[in-house]
Amino acid sequence: MLTKQDQEVYYVANGTVVTPKGFKATGVHAGLRYTKKDLGVIVCDVPASCAAVYTKSHFQAAPLKVTQESIAKEQKLQAIVVNSACANACTGAKGLKDAYEMRELCAQQFSLPPHYVAVASTGVIGEFLPMEKIRAGIQQLAPVALEEGAYAFQTAILTTDTVMKQACYQTTIDGKTVTVGGAAKGSGMIHPNMATMLAFITTDANISSKTLQQALRSITDVSFNQITVDGETSTNDMVVVMASGLAENEELTPEHPEWLKFYEALKKTCEDLAKQIAKDGEGATKLIEVRVRGAVNDEEAKRIAKKIVGSNLVKTAVYGADANWGRIIGAIGHADATVNPDCVDVLLGPIVMLKMSEPQPFSEEEATAYLQSEEIVIEVDLHLGNGTGIAWGCDLTYDYVKINASYRT
Amino acid sequence: MLTKQDQEVYYVANGTVVTPKGFKATGVHAGLRYTKKDLGVIVCDVPASCAAVYTKSHFQAAPLKVTQESIAKEQKLQAIVVNSACANACTGAKGLKDAYEMRELCAQQFSLPPHYVAVASTGVIGEFLPMEKIRAGIQQLAPVALEEGAYAFQTAILTTDTVMKQACYQTTIDGKTVTVGGAAKGSGMIHPNMATMLAFITTDANISSKTLQQALRSITDVSFNQITVDGETSTNDMVVVMASGLAENEELTPEHPEWLKFYEALKKTCEDLAKQIAKDGEGATKLIEVRVRGAVNDEEAKRIAKKIVGSNLVKTAVYGADANWGRIIGAIGHADATVNPDCVDVLLGPIVMLKMSEPQPFSEEEATAYLQSEEIVIEVDLHLGNGTGIAWGCDLTYDYVKINASYRT
Repeated sequence: MLTKQDQEVYYVANGTVVTPKGFKATGVHAGLRYTKKDLGVIVCDVPASCAAVYTKSHFQAAPLKVTQESIAKEQKLQAIVVNSACANACTGAKGLKDAYEMRELCAQQFSLPPHYVAVASTGVIGEFLPMEKIRAGIQQLAPVALEEGAYAFQTAILTTDTVMKQACYQTTIDGKTVTVGGAAKGSGMIHPNMATMLAFITTDANISSKTLQQALRSITDVSFNQITVDGETSTNDMVVVMASGLAENEELTPEHPEWLKFYEALKKTCEDLAKQIAKDGEGATKLIEVRVRGAVNDEEAKRIAKKIVGSNLVKTAVYGADANWGRIIGAIGHADATVNPDCVDVLLGPIVMLKMSEPQPFSEEEATAYLQSEEIVIEVDLHLGNGTGIAWGCDLTYDYVKINASYRT
Repeated sequence: MLTKQDQEVYYVANGTVVTPKGFKATGVHAGLRYTKKDLGVIVCDVPASCAAVYTKSHFQAAPLKVTQESIAKEQKLQAIVVNSACANACTGAKGLKDAYEMRELCAQQFSLPPHYVAVASTGVIGEFLPMEKIRAGIQQLAPVALEEGAYAFQTAILTTDTVMKQACYQTTIDGKTVTVGGAAKGSGMIHPNMATMLAFITTDANISSKTLQQALRSITDVSFNQITVDGETSTNDMVVVMASGLAENEELTPEHPEWLKFYEALKKTCEDLAKQIAKDGEGATKLIEVRVRGAVNDEEAKRIAKKIVGSNLVKTAVYGADANWGRIIGAIGHADATVNPDCVDVLLGPIVMLKMSEPQPFSEEEATAYLQSEEIVIEVDLHLGNGTGIAWGCDLTYDYVKINASYRT
């Protein structure tokens, strides 16, 4: 549904985390990986309002603990330092000490108080950070407010991702241009639970940390929390937003007349990054979008959508371009939600497969052709209420097996 | 743990559903598939006590509705007729009519009242049973109390399974030999929820339907409900037990002094079939057994065990013989259970990987060698309480993707 607010939020082609006013970024090769960049930073010119959501895994990695402590102190951030290749998860007391040192080193490098620095890591679980390399790497970090700085950052945070993920949206508030930019990494172990994968979002909006946190939590539930690659929740999932305030709009609250424009810009940035993560799932060749309507409420619609998009059998059928809607029914069948088995519609793109639970004749050729698209939409109507929900995922392929049969090696 | 009852229950090599007194079986090629047998029956000489559990999918297939109606009438069964190739699920009013006709035809063939007949189907969802072939096929059914009859039945119920599943255990009650035999099919869409895949169990024990039902439900929760191939619950899952009473023991109830021997024989039969189903999961090359102890209760231990064994990342790592215990931690991390992240042990077979949440040095060579076994055991100790639980699954391979990318074709 297009609302006035939607129409006043614009996609910025090539926009990145340095497009909002006041942000610089970079990434370097610190030697955690053979050749790829593996250490990056985003720095803000001023102490920024901030918000963050974290994995709900029982095993929160050390950097998440440190970041939470940083934010708790003053609800301000001015830098985020991130490494790939090593998750610094399940590393006990030494791992926590390493994460604190990483924060301290970054604070020194940019002359900041340590609690203005957030730390994030992604990679193999159970190995210690090679601190010599981290130390040397941080000293090389020289962030710039240029596209090349953002690209270097975006590259440094990737693991098995095949493409960089960036998104940027703009709107006008109080006559001022307000920009939201984001970078993310995803690929495998993607099934965020009330949190998400690594995503870093910047904005120049003037907004308090408290209001930003509320907006981020609500948006995460319909964006990052609605994607799945393999049903796995990582120990390191985190989204951090920094707001520099340099757009100089009046402070944003839900009561601000143009609040929804900012909310929409932040939402579109998150949704855009979430879809990019789903599409670039390990081994994936196709993005799958599942739209559920007619559920008893939005919560159940979201749950069913995520169940379908997370089904190995749906995912392999999509990979094989096999219009096997029985797989969709199988997934709906064991979703923890209200379903009347006698009144379900299932559509594959424009093709009606099941209407009021009765199989409909369809052209196999047409269905196979549709399933060869890069983006597949599955629609389900439960005819029970007004609940709607969307989830995104990808197909399950030989390459997913290949990548994960020897992830560490 | 071996108990006295365990020791008095013996495995019967080559035992089948016709080993207990009073049962005959067969299977024929009715033409639902190109060449493989696809229609089978088990018939009892007398009206048998019976018990059954069914899928909790919202979409229960037509044969399950008919079977429930049969059993509801008198709690007796004398025949079970099963077809593969077509699940008769999501087939509306016509599908239900077809299932009733299948029951009626079987009743006529063996001169039984229709409500003494159970019906089961497995195969593609959303297609109608080819009733001409079913009619002709049922007329060919001539069950025998011979091994060859059981083999024919076991073959007829398979879909993408690569091997037949059978199990048989014996004990002595009141000085009489009591036998339990079983046949099952599994393969894909295996993640039973309070029910299971197709399994058919016979016994000559003298036991009421009510007592049998209680035993079956409790055993299902620690056997069939603890396996997973791909996290998918079928519309057609069903376990049916028939007890002929021809062993002539005193009627079994939980108060009978030798009750546990019967319970153990039934449990071993179910567990044996469940493990065979897990091991023959679509594309599988290895059986994975996960043992969790130290959980706050058995329920949570079972839940964590099933989460680990169901993790795509654990499954692919096992396939690739990659000792990536981070995948196990990832799975425990998002299990809905009590976990203290600072006191978890993880063992891969005899190799300690994590002790009180601290990574332990281990020999990669030894771990890789262990992971090349056909049966992999993962042990987890949560150090929180006395809860224990076991779950079984299989590795995720290229062949799983291959099989399911074009299941219908």
